[in-house]
Amino acid sequence: MSNKKVLKYGMVGGGPGSFIGGVHRKAAKFDGEAKIVSGAFSRTYEKTLQTGNKLGLEEDRLYKNYKEMAKKEASRADGIDFVAIVVPNKFHYPVAKEFLNQGINVICDKPLTVTLDEAKELEELTRKNGLLFGVTYVYSGYPMVKQARELVQSGELGEIRVIQGEYPQEWLAEPVEKEGNKQAEWRTDPGLSGSANCVGDIGTHIENTVAYISNLKIESLAANLSIFGKGRELDDNAEMLVKFENGATGSFWCSQVAVGHDNGLKVRVYGTKGSLVWKQEDPNYLELSYLHKPKEILSRGRDELQPTAADAVRLPGGHPEGFYEAFSNIYANFTTALKDKKQGKKVDPDHYDYPDVSEGVQGVQFIETCLESSDQNSKWIDLN
Amino acid sequence: MSNKKVLKYGMVGGGPGSFIGGVHRKAAKFDGEAKIVSGAFSRTYEKTLQTGNKLGLEEDRLYKNYKEMAKKEASRADGIDFVAIVVPNKFHYPVAKEFLNQGINVICDKPLTVTLDEAKELEELTRKNGLLFGVTYVYSGYPMVKQARELVQSGELGEIRVIQGEYPQEWLAEPVEKEGNKQAEWRTDPGLSGSANCVGDIGTHIENTVAYISNLKIESLAANLSIFGKGRELDDNAEMLVKFENGATGSFWCSQVAVGHDNGLKVRVYGTKGSLVWKQEDPNYLELSYLHKPKEILSRGRDELQPTAADAVRLPGGHPEGFYEAFSNIYANFTTALKDKKQGKKVDPDHYDYPDVSEGVQGVQFIETCLESSDQNSKWIDLN
Amino acid sequence: MSNKKVLKYGMVGGGPGSFIGGVHRKAAKFDGEAKIVSGAFSRTYEKTLQTGNKLGLEEDRLYKNYKEMAKKEASRADGIDFVAIVVPNKFHYPVAKEFLNQGINVICDKPLTVTLDEAKELEELTRKNGLLFGVTYVYSGYPMVKQARELVQSGELGEIRVIQGEYPQEWLAEPVEKEGNKQAEWRTDPGLSGSANCVGDIGTHIENTVAYISNLKIESLAANLSIFGKGRELDDNAEMLVKFENGATGSFWCSQVAVGHDNGLKVRVYGTKGSLVWKQEDPNYLELSYLHKPKEILSRGRDELQPTAADAVRLPGGHPEGFYEAFSNIYANFTTALKDKKQGKKVDPDHYDYPDVSEGVQGVQFIETCLESSDQNSKWIDLN
Amino acid sequence: MSNKKVLKYGMVGGGPGSFIGGVHRKAAKFDGEAKIVSGAFSRTYEKTLQTGNKLGLEEDRLYKNYKEMAKKEASRADGIDFVAIVVPNKFHYPVAKEFLNQGINVICDKPLTVTLDEAKELEELTRKNGLLFGVTYVYSGYPMVKQARELVQSGELGEIRVIQGEYPQEWLAEPVEKEGNKQAEWRTDPGLSGSANCVGDIGTHIENTVAYISNLKIESLAANLSIFGKGRELDDNAEMLVKFENGATGSFWCSQVAVGHDNGLKVRVYGTKGSLVWKQEDPNYLELSYLHKPKEILSRGRDELQPTAADAVRLPGGHPEGFYEAFSNIYANFTTALKDKKQGKKVDPDHYDYPDVSEGVQGVQFIETCLESSDQNSKWIDLN
Repeated sequence: MSNKKVLKYGMVGGGPGSFIGGVHRKAAKFDGEAKIVSGAFSRTYEKTLQTGNKLGLEEDRLYKNYKEMAKKEASRADGIDFVAIVVPNKFHYPVAKEFLNQGINVICDKPLTVTLDEAKELEELTRKNGLLFGVTYVYSGYPMVKQARELVQSGELGEIRVIQGEYPQEWLAEPVEKEGNKQAEWRTDPGLSGSANCVGDIGTHIENTVAYISNLKIESLAANLSIFGKGRELDDNAEMLVKFENGATGSFWCSQVAVGHDNGLKVRVYGTKGSLVWKQEDPNYLELSYLHKPKEILSRGRDELQPTAADAVRLPGGHPEGFYEAFSNIYANFTTALKDKKQGKKVDPDHYDYPDVSEGVQGVQFIETCLESSDQNSKWIDLN
Repeated sequence: MSNKKVLKYGMVGGGPGSFIGGVHRKAAKFDGEAKIVSGAFSRTYEKTLQTGNKLGLEEDRLYKNYKEMAKKEASRADGIDFVAIVVPNKFHYPVAKEFLNQGINVICDKPLTVTLDEAKELEELTRKNGLLFGVTYVYSGYPMVKQARELVQSGELGEIRVIQGEYPQEWLAEPVEKEGNKQAEWRTDPGLSGSANCVGDIGTHIENTVAYISNLKIESLAANLSIFGKGRELDDNAEMLVKFENGATGSFWCSQVAVGHDNGLKVRVYGTKGSLVWKQEDPNYLELSYLHKPKEILSRGRDELQPTAADAVRLPGGHPEGFYEAFSNIYANFTTALKDKKQGKKVDPDHYDYPDVSEGVQGVQFIETCLESSDQNSKWIDLN
Repeated sequence: MSNKKVLKYGMVGGGPGSFIGGVHRKAAKFDGEAKIVSGAFSRTYEKTLQTGNKLGLEEDRLYKNYKEMAKKEASRADGIDFVAIVVPNKFHYPVAKEFLNQGINVICDKPLTVTLDEAKELEELTRKNGLLFGVTYVYSGYPMVKQARELVQSGELGEIRVIQGEYPQEWLAEPVEKEGNKQAEWRTDPGLSGSANCVGDIGTHIENTVAYISNLKIESLAANLSIFGKGRELDDNAEMLVKFENGATGSFWCSQVAVGHDNGLKVRVYGTKGSLVWKQEDPNYLELSYLHKPKEILSRGRDELQPTAADAVRLPGGHPEGFYEAFSNIYANFTTALKDKKQGKKVDPDHYDYPDVSEGVQGVQFIETCLESSDQNSKWIDLN
Repeated sequence: MSNKKVLKYGMVGGGPGSFIGGVHRKAAKFDGEAKIVSGAFSRTYEKTLQTGNKLGLEEDRLYKNYKEMAKKEASRADGIDFVAIVVPNKFHYPVAKEFLNQGINVICDKPLTVTLDEAKELEELTRKNGLLFGVTYVYSGYPMVKQARELVQSGELGEIRVIQGEYPQEWLAEPVEKEGNKQAEWRTDPGLSGSANCVGDIGTHIENTVAYISNLKIESLAANLSIFGKGRELDDNAEMLVKFENGATGSFWCSQVAVGHDNGLKVRVYGTKGSLVWKQEDPNYLELSYLHKPKEILSRGRDELQPTAADAVRLPGGHPEGFYEAFSNIYANFTTALKDKKQGKKVDPDHYDYPDVSEGVQGVQFIETCLESSDQNSKWIDLN
């Protein structure tokens, strides 16, 4: 693609010390999807300048706050095509709202918001203003997750009976939020994270990845959230029983106190004819089992994949791809949709294979339902 | 040991077509623990004769039914030291009761009985008559499971926070009970299996293995049992939320419809300082993780183990041991206790590291509680 | 089978402190293949008595030395059907010769002898006297090794191009032969082991397992034997280039100083259409790769196997079998042949799937050729 | 870093259909190391224009051939800081020479050249002209390979005794060079690849990765190169025995006909006290074994690493990094050296941890020695 077609974007958040800001920026440029041109990277203007300078941005596009940025970028002829929002959870809502109101498309980290009402409001605003809104549920960006989805959808596994999802981590096993770990500080702080920590940060990834692969909606769930870290106000471990709309059952487990696990998202789907296993820490392979056949290990880049999966592959088999490539795939599909939109095409997010604001809403609903069920002694709560 | 010391035993069940009967017999002779001398292997006397003849037993010790066997063996000077009961679940109770009443020690397959009342009655009878009663929860016989228990007990993992257990199988994914599979026929038949199939057959193994490793009692549980096989009357899949007496939480999953899994028992225990993972299908290794240290893979036969584990090892590292050896370890500890008892020692089952009738009772209580919770819409039910 | 059909055997070697003697005894009784009735377990008669007593043998069948044993057992009406020889390598030859000369069948540990001339003499004697002679190359007893052989033979992998074999261990990484390790003492002692240590103890297992699976003879090899342990006289590590009769190439590596490896025999066979990998430490699975298909993991007990492999399986899928079962499979096939022979049938060892004396000869030739090549600066040496 | 400091580079090769060209470009921009500004991407000018246009380059910096490019770029005030050479092996030499002669720094794909003389000439020219020359042996760019090097160098593994290296692939198992596979066409063509195919393409990666990790020079080797693909002129499989300067031994195996392997580079290093295993297809982990300790699995991002390794890590543990990140690490270190050089610092390549032209020379020497040994019936050939 020529330079002219490269989209321009700005970023809110992602200043010094941020982890996910840098990931978004690498993802955006990975295949030349989009070029960063402006930012309000921090509440401290000096930090915004520092980050902007490092990125080689023009100073007149480094803003003191997101409101100024939304307004000014909206009024520029060469204004940004979209904004990437990577602030703590609680601020997703006001920031996204501001940009949507200014007619600017949004890509935002997950969870979309900290309340379901906010999430629905953003969804409505998006639709009303005819904008695009991506939510970076990164794991659906992995080629083998796409392949998993295709396999389920093709009926190869038969009717789905059982789904098991888990996402254990260990990083909050100790009280690192009291020892200077910035990530831990805001995630365990209700003022920044909202009412959920573990369920909101990683539980929601289980829900999204399961929904993406299985195309099944959760009908109801019964959750048990726990706080193991002394003095914490928010959950750091949770187990849930789950029932899906088609009668399938399952359980989910997310934890930030599971010593030995780095980032262990794992989804297993069992149908009447076959099953699949995908592990985020070994993402280039998909384990498939069918009745009366030996187990198969599908290899990204080696084995034939469905087109949506194959298109998300960059390297030959055995050349490992990872987290950045998955993130970039989210950006690639979002920006493809945006380019089509700019060219006047009617864009239905469902046809572009990126996590849309509606999946963001669904994620927040999952989090809220978990909180509600756990508050009611793990009672089954319907999601509709 | 000389021949004189080898114990003599009889078997009820284990005739032609039985799987577990042959396992018990191999286990009993593996290290010369005990010698089979009598049996009522089948309700059909011809089949008993057939099996007895194959085993080289004297015909006067092949019985028409277990009642005759219990009575006659009890009255012989050279009568059996114990009976091994390997009939379908529903008959564990009457058979065991008969032998206990005749003063004969018992080793019995799991689950102990199909109702908690029966189980408690057997426990009482055992104690009253001063007998020994082993229940073959085989997985506690694996050296690395013993090592896991020692590690938890030593406090090396810190305080236990989370326990995850699962036991997926695929063998009932299709309606094989209608296609001549004898094992499937009786397991899915309430008249032979009792009120539970999956939870009673393998769910109980999760409970026992977790209890053995963690030494923690389940305080309460919330279960969701499912029947996926059309026309089945008993569960073939179940998920449970679990709370332990010390505040730990967890989830268990057992399934007989999980395509791709042969016999996937897996137990994971997470403490404040470390965690462990044991997988039955790869039983010679134990995965250990501690904070601030690389993950460790403990190898049976290579790495230093605690005495109870080391004593259960027969082969050098890298020479795989499996299911038979684990089963034999249960027999070895049970017969050691029995030999001590015969020599007049006071025998406390807790000191001999075999699953005693009390663990059998605990298992049945777990099964009943799962059924009760699931009947009450997955309500939390206390186990005390 | 009834008692009458159980074969009787005696053992030379296998007294206190022996490892492999106990393995043979467990293997022989695993499925009731054979019953031990006599022995010369040690050069020290007291030790023979001690072992014999433990095994419950009659004292008149415990012998002061193997010559007495061979003579007396040969003259008894109820004499042994075969002798199991588990003495250090150097004594395989004289002991086996004695029993063959007395008309007694032999099963002997590997390597068959310490010189090729001895090996050939035993082979001749076996044929001349119309006896059976098994060599316990245990790894061909694993069901998945049998399946591998069947797959190669069926042509499913196409024409074989490359074979890679390795057998790393760590147990001689330190000078344990000077620290009281009996196994290490005799293996590193030329007076007991012969001219080869590592190549003779485990290199020969690579050769045998590769030959069994591939059915290909080695045409020539170029070897580099090394001694890393200070003061050692025999090799403790070796690498070889190998050419097979059909034009395939490969390399073998065996080591006793490879820290981190317990008993890492691994064989990989690559053909024009597919390949297979078998790992002794994970013996219940076979990794299969075909062009244009996802990798497959064949599971013993779950997946359909060829008859020779299926017949060697005792347990359902996911119930691990290991070293003892493999060893027992060798005994089972050897004793089946022997029973047929006793019934007057003509017995061709090739039809009974146990390692015959000819494979023992081939193994010794491999060892000698490795020594010769290494002495000549890794020159290629033909094996014919 | 600000824009001003970003280096400018050009590329020779990497036009439509090229694989490695795109990898270099992604690597160069991954962390903003360098910006592409010019190119002679193809011998066909239209293709160069096409690629240049896609990349958004100015047309006056798209050249008809590399000679013109070298000359013109050298004469521009804003000329490139270095050239990236990604043409077929045989043209590495003339292209690199041209740029070196024009005083332009070079980064070039491996193998450096197709003859040792050419390689040495480039090395000399580099030194004489005071330039920097990187060779993209990508695998030394993986953090866990760096950690492996540090561990060996620190002496933690003791003295190195054995090194095993392998690099199996399957992509030439079938005659794809006759079926339109461009990569296969040039690699199997002596006119483009030189005298070696498999050894030159991937065997050299074993040598480089082993040398990087172990810091040991190969003293001599004995190689057996094979051609399995009908009608091929160059090797597609090779095994080698290897002796290292310190007395260590080992074997290497590379193959392009090993069905089932995608890109299976694996290096194992065994010392007197410990060992390590690194697998390219699972690059984020390092397996470590020490005597008398359980096996350890070091995780990139989780476990503490040595500074050179830790500096090459971008993501937290459990977030997979892969091939692009490794490639980018090579670029990052090369461009860091170049920036220092531009600022007038004396730059010793050894201090910048990128593969320098001297390692390129060493690689070509390895290839030539393999060819020579194989031609002489696998005779041991010294490398000095």
